[in-house]
Amino acid sequence: MADSTLYYLDDLRVGQRFASKTSVTVTEERIKSFATEFDPQPFHLDHEAAKPSLFGGLAASGWHTAAITMKLVTDGGMPIAGGIIGASGELAWPRPTRPGDVLRMESEVQEIVPSKSRPDRGMITMRIETKNQNNELVQVFTVKMVVPRKAAP
Amino acid sequence: MADSTLYYLDDLRVGQRFASKTSVTVTEERIKSFATEFDPQPFHLDHEAAKPSLFGGLAASGWHTAAITMKLVTDGGMPIAGGIIGASGELAWPRPTRPGDVLRMESEVQEIVPSKSRPDRGMITMRIETKNQNNELVQVFTVKMVVPRKAAP
Repeated sequence: MADSTLYYLDDLRVGQRFASKTSVTVTEERIKSFATEFDPQPFHLDHEAAKPSLFGGLAASGWHTAAITMKLVTDGGMPIAGGIIGASGELAWPRPTRPGDVLRMESEVQEIVPSKSRPDRGMITMRIETKNQNNELVQVFTVKMVVPRKAAP
Repeated sequence: MADSTLYYLDDLRVGQRFASKTSVTVTEERIKSFATEFDPQPFHLDHEAAKPSLFGGLAASGWHTAAITMKLVTDGGMPIAGGIIGASGELAWPRPTRPGDVLRMESEVQEIVPSKSRPDRGMITMRIETKNQNNELVQVFTVKMVVPRKAAP
């Protein structure tokens, strides 16, 4: 049964845009605790140690930025039927996320390809941008996602 | 001052391989708590809700797999000078991470390109594979990384 509040493959068109309904403020405390668990490098843990690094100051792990982006994507701004399930994608971090940054998400449908072998689904390419409070890009993720089709009438 | 226990651009060659010195066991509890914070979709939170999904059962968020991989990369198995700093990359999740999976990392240098404008650094392409206890690939991340050169003698 199709849910009319969700986008199926048939509802999407190239150029269609989505945006997060919320934002996430990235605290220094969470930058450090995320890094302690998953990416314990000095430039994600300590201001002084970060100064001589490529980042020039404390920066969030790129994987923290990626995880926050997923939270923004799943917070109602991109209501794709079947859920947000990425198969593969290209990821870039043009600049680091800093303590106090407020992140939001904007996305755009770039390609829609119905499956030839599976009539109940297709693949779309979505460009998902993460921006900070200064409208600067901190991440671009161009992802191929599986999206279900509406059942035939 | 170059540190002889770390790999500088000059120390690397195409085909060189690294492997994690540790492994990470992925608990159902952490799968659910990570998803609650960053990827709160039913198939990452609840066994019953996950059954009819594309995953066919409870699966970790791909971003959780990615974050764990970064932990494996930074745990001493890939001692690159300057730290592990990715600029961009291609990410694929061939299969999901499941509760109880034990993950480890293997990587291989695919390309080495000294910078023409910055004689103190270069860019390498590294293929980073994440495998489970059955030697099945759960993630491949092919990343371009900045790596410092040794100072000229």
